[in-house]
Order: sequence, then structure tokens, then C-alpha cells
Amino acid sequence: MSYQITFGPRVRKSPFFDCTVADGVRHFTIYNQMYMPTGYSDPQAEYRRLLEGVSMWDVAAERQVEIKGRDAERLVRYLTPRDLKNCAIGKGKYVPLCDHQGRLINDPVLLRLADDRFWLSIADSDVLLWVRAVAAEGGFDVTVSEPDVSPLAIQGPKAEAVVIDLLGDWVRDLKYFWFREADVDGIPLVVARSGWSKQGGFELYLCDGSKGEALWERVKKAGAAHGIGPGAPNYIERVESGLLSYGSDNLADSTPYEVGLDKMINLDRSDDFIGKQALFKEAEQGPARLLVGITFDGEPVPSNQHPWPVRVDGKSAGAVRVVCHSPRLAQNIGLALLDRPFTALGTILEIEGEGATYRATVVPQPLVPPGTPLP
Amino acid sequence: MSYQITFGPRVRKSPFFDCTVADGVRHFTIYNQMYMPTGYSDPQAEYRRLLEGVSMWDVAAERQVEIKGRDAERLVRYLTPRDLKNCAIGKGKYVPLCDHQGRLINDPVLLRLADDRFWLSIADSDVLLWVRAVAAEGGFDVTVSEPDVSPLAIQGPKAEAVVIDLLGDWVRDLKYFWFREADVDGIPLVVARSGWSKQGGFELYLCDGSKGEALWERVKKAGAAHGIGPGAPNYIERVESGLLSYGSDNLADSTPYEVGLDKMINLDRSDDFIGKQALFKEAEQGPARLLVGITFDGEPVPSNQHPWPVRVDGKSAGAVRVVCHSPRLAQNIGLALLDRPFTALGTILEIEGEGATYRATVVPQPLVPPGTPLP
Repeated sequence: MSYQITFGPRVRKSPFFDCTVADGVRHFTIYNQMYMPTGYSDPQAEYRRLLEGVSMWDVAAERQVEIKGRDAERLVRYLTPRDLKNCAIGKGKYVPLCDHQGRLINDPVLLRLADDRFWLSIADSDVLLWVRAVAAEGGFDVTVSEPDVSPLAIQGPKAEAVVIDLLGDWVRDLKYFWFREADVDGIPLVVARSGWSKQGGFELYLCDGSKGEALWERVKKAGAAHGIGPGAPNYIERVESGLLSYGSDNLADSTPYEVGLDKMINLDRSDDFIGKQALFKEAEQGPARLLVGITFDGEPVPSNQHPWPVRVDGKSAGAVRVVCHSPRLAQNIGLALLDRPFTALGTILEIEGEGATYRATVVPQPLVPPGTPLP
Repeated sequence: MSYQITFGPRVRKSPFFDCTVADGVRHFTIYNQMYMPTGYSDPQAEYRRLLEGVSMWDVAAERQVEIKGRDAERLVRYLTPRDLKNCAIGKGKYVPLCDHQGRLINDPVLLRLADDRFWLSIADSDVLLWVRAVAAEGGFDVTVSEPDVSPLAIQGPKAEAVVIDLLGDWVRDLKYFWFREADVDGIPLVVARSGWSKQGGFELYLCDGSKGEALWERVKKAGAAHGIGPGAPNYIERVESGLLSYGSDNLADSTPYEVGLDKMINLDRSDDFIGKQALFKEAEQGPARLLVGITFDGEPVPSNQHPWPVRVDGKSAGAVRVVCHSPRLAQNIGLALLDRPFTALGTILEIEGEGATYRATVVPQPLVPPGTPLP
């Protein structure tokens, strides 16, 4: 049974929306109050294209929150537990955001565009409202806005060749997570070597929404010789690679420690930041739950629609957040958020799936080592 | 062409989700990061049922933000420009929320459950994060949470009869927007005479998500004799009746004055509230735009997928936010957000629709007077 998504003016459309429709998009979700493609007609082909070729994704729903002004740097440092002491212009940083109780509220990439101008490139939660409230109540002299900026991702081993054809040889020298302003035929871009896969690639942050179609067509044209095709953030590849999906993998009260972001939390900073006290306590006690990788046998599973309850020796242990079948491991895999006593490698889990039960094992992450090819 | 909605663990499911699926839901949207039904198989029947009978809606996505503690009342007063001096326990109030620049960020209903305990029953924006930031940075001694509370709406002229059968005769005495705690077969509820239609009705705030199916079945059973059937917040009826749809009708920088909420803004209050200065200025200058009702001739239009550009005498004047065909007026109607010079009653608008152009007229609201029957 399939269900239709309703289109209406409450939810925004991406500047690439009409292009994705013309190119055969079939599935959508809503992310940051914007329609986001989740699939075209052939999931196997989309997965293979990402692993062996090059794929283009409308990820405009990854909105930017711009923080600009005299106190911009001070505010950005206050917003995240990560220490930003080496925060250079042109270098992106993955910066978890927590609330005052140390709960993870988003996991954006921070882009410093100028001394006093930053973007938070956000996951699915309303960081714009959050930052506006903190800035206004905390007395920071900044302007907080959502600029007209919409990323288009180019992902896969052939992504670099496409972006060289599009922008020139200089992109070879762009290091991982670094970015640069550029333009293509007058289309203003911020070009970053980044993206929500471990297959390599770039994100082109389109800085003029009226030029979405022009950019989409230019990327298609540059990519044609490399076999580019449309795709979307790939559910299977990201579970294999251990990329966090904010809102899928965590619960509303999860801390960054629960989901493995320990290295992004710098408690030895001398300056204050939101959630500092709570995170200190959490670091001392250790998190109550942990997100772990699992594998399990049986027929290839489709993606789950609900979290799946987990028991260990008959005792409730938490839930499987996401599952899929890994073509590279030829095995079912998943991520489970479990009470800490049940998270040791090798722990055997009893899982209540949708219409079936499974016996799974806690295994190391990433579930699939980087560079593992398709069989 | 229709597009499928993707189901996965990032977006929450309502406690009534499985029941709506069993009852034939076909269309969904995502609202407050939760799947929300928008239609079953027969829009005409759903509209008629709301106008002449009784309809039950899964509106669990209308989440609650609970504010509790010593400073709860002070915080709630600070959050809204509406003066809450007569805010009684048991009486709901429609309370626009603004940010510090006076922009409308949500238009919830406030329920005071106790001296120190309030719910904001919210539209589609992240009020939980907003209130947490304001409370923590502003030093309010409160706990801000999202309780396990999920409204089920019963709407239509026969709604009262259903709710009497379900809960007893006392509901006759429940005045508009008032509420009371109650239970049905041990299912804990808050029962309010409210809902997002002008056809009368109730909202049952289910206070235990594990009992969604039990409540749904009890309501169906009580409603059977009255011809109850499933439905969803009705797009056409709400445009006819002039109910605001936050996010559909306004823009991200719209003020409450632009969308006709003047009466909810009490600038003569002596105490401080968020956005006070900006709203003073806006009240003095008058809003730059206004949301107006329009009618236009031609073949019955389906609902619009984008806002439609509006011109007056060839000049850009704003956009039509929503359109539909009104069965009660036998005419096309809509709401347009226009620059103020173009908002006088009788103004003729040139509209660029999806595949057609229209000549529309600015008319008084509500577009359909209360109590107007179906022909």
C-alpha cells in the first residue's frame, strides 16, 4: 500500500523541485518544512550509481541559518560544545548543537564565510527559531536569518570529474570539508567538498533560488559524460557508512554522547557554551544509552517504518532505529539505540520486527569499512 | 501525477496512525515532524460530512508544549502579545506568538491546566525549541516539555451528539474554547469544545499514546449512530470560514497584523513581552501587507500547489496563498497576501494561476458567512 504526499503552500518547494519532477522523482519526504526527494524509480540503480558512478541530489531542504554581526563568532561558539578555536574562513566544521539540558537538537555543518558571518547548514529541526531566541534573550548583537541558499549535492567516485568539468581544475585542491565561493555562467555558488555519503563528492550551495533550473541543467550537462543520474540521500549507504541521521537515530532527549559524537564535545574549553553543565555530568556518568551497529541474518529486509523493540535475555533493552539490507555485506544491518548494559560488542539481541523476529549481534561501526566495493 | 510519501523513523507516527490506515487514509502531510492524514478517498464526501454530519480527524500532529513550574505564568505572558489577565483554568485562549522582531512564529491555543501548568497546542513550527531557549536564556524557573498528548478532533453539527454519547450530558455545558479533564473507559482525556473548523465540535486530547486505538474505536462506536466518518482538517471549509493556516497564509516575516490578528495584540499592557517594540512600530505604521479574501470566476479550481503571483494594473501586488472552489458559494475563492495599497475591497486582481490566468476581486471575510448551508 502506498500513500500520497499532499502538495500545498504550507510546505516550501526547492528551487530544483520542477527539475526533479521532470527527471522522474517518485518519493518525497518533508524536511525543514520543505519537500525533499527521497527516491526516483529504481533504488538499486540509485545505490549503484552512488557507489560506482555519480549522483545528483536535491538537498535544498538542508537549509542555512546565517549568523552575522559583531557578536557572530561569540554566539556561534556559545551554541556548540565543539571548540572552534581553529575556525578558518573557508573550512567547514561539523558542530553538534545541544540545548541547556545537553540534549542534541541538531548536527549542522558550520561554514565561516567571513570574520563576522557564518552559516549553520542544518538537519531537520528549527535552528532558526532556536538561534533567534538565544541571540535575542542572550543579548548578542547579530542578525539571524535564513538566506536564499539551496544545496545541490554531487556524490560518488566520479563526482570530482564532474565538478572539474563544471568549475575547473582548482576543485582538485579543495580539501575535505573546505569550501569556496564560485560561479557557473553567472549562477552564484558556494562549493564545498562535502556531502551526506562516504563516497566522496561536493555540495553546490546555490545562492540564488531563481537559478535552480539553470544550475540543475548545467550539472546534468557536465555530468552526462560521466553517467550522472538523479538520486537522493541514500538510506542504505549512510547506515553502512555510519553517518548519523538526526531524528532517525536519536530520541528527543538523546545526548551527543549517546550517538557517538564524543569527539565533538570539548569540555576542557574555558568559555561557556549551552549545555556545558549537563554535558559535564553526562561525561562523568557516561550516557544511559548508546547507538550501536547490528547485523542479522534472514531474508533481505526492506527499510523499517517504525523503531523495532529489542530484548536481551527477555529484558527490554531499547529499540532498533533503522534497518536495511547491505548489498556490500550481503547481510541485514541496522543501528540500535540500547541501554548501555546491552551495548557490548557481541551482545545477542532479540528483535521484534514488522511481521518477523530476528536474532541480531552488536558489531563494530562503521558497519561497512570505507572503500568496500560492491560485489 | 502523484507522489508517494516516504515512511521512516525520522518522522513520528500518531497514536491513531494504524487506525487511519485501517479506515482508508490515502494522503498525508508531515506537520511538526509527525505524519498527519490529509485525505481519505472522497474529498466531496468528507466536506459534506463536516458540513452536515460529523467527522473524526487524527490531529495528533497538533503537539503540545507544556510549561510548568514557578515561573510558568510569567513565561507564558512574556511569550505572547495577547494580554492573559483573565486566563482561567479550564479556558482555552488563542495566543499568537511572535519573535523579537514581531514576526508571527506560531498561533497556538493556550490551555491553562493548573496555576503553574500550561499547554501551547501548536501549529507547524518548533515552539518547543523556541520556548526552551527563551526560558533558559531568560532565567525562568520552568520545565518545558512535549507531553504524550495527541488530539483527536470531532467536528461537524452532529459532533455534540457524539460526544454526549461518549462522555455524558455534561459536555452540553462546556462553552466554546473551554476544556475539562475526563476519561472514557480509563482512557485519560482533556476534552475541549474547539477545533479547526467553524462547524462546531470538540477536540479530545488523548493523554496516553498507548491508548490511541482504544480511543479511535470508542469514538467510531459512539459516532456510528450519527453517521461519523473519517476526515482531516478541511482545506475548503477553513478558507470559506477564514481560519488562519499558519505557514500557508503568511510568509516567514509576516506580522500578526498582516494576517488579521490585531485583536490578539494588546499593546496597552504594562508588562513586557517578546516583540513589544517591533509590534508598537508596526501598529503605528500599519502593516506593509494584508491577507485578504478573494473570489474569482471560471471553472472550479483544484487547490493550488504554489502561491500564485498577483498584479494590479500590471504592477506586482503580492501573491495568492491558497485557492479552492467553494461548494457553498458555487465560486472560486482564496486568500491573498497583498501589498497594502492593493487591499481595498473591490480591487481587481490579475492572477497568474497554474496553467491559467484569472481576474479576481478583493471581498470581505469570512468568504462564507457562518451557518451558510450547502445548496
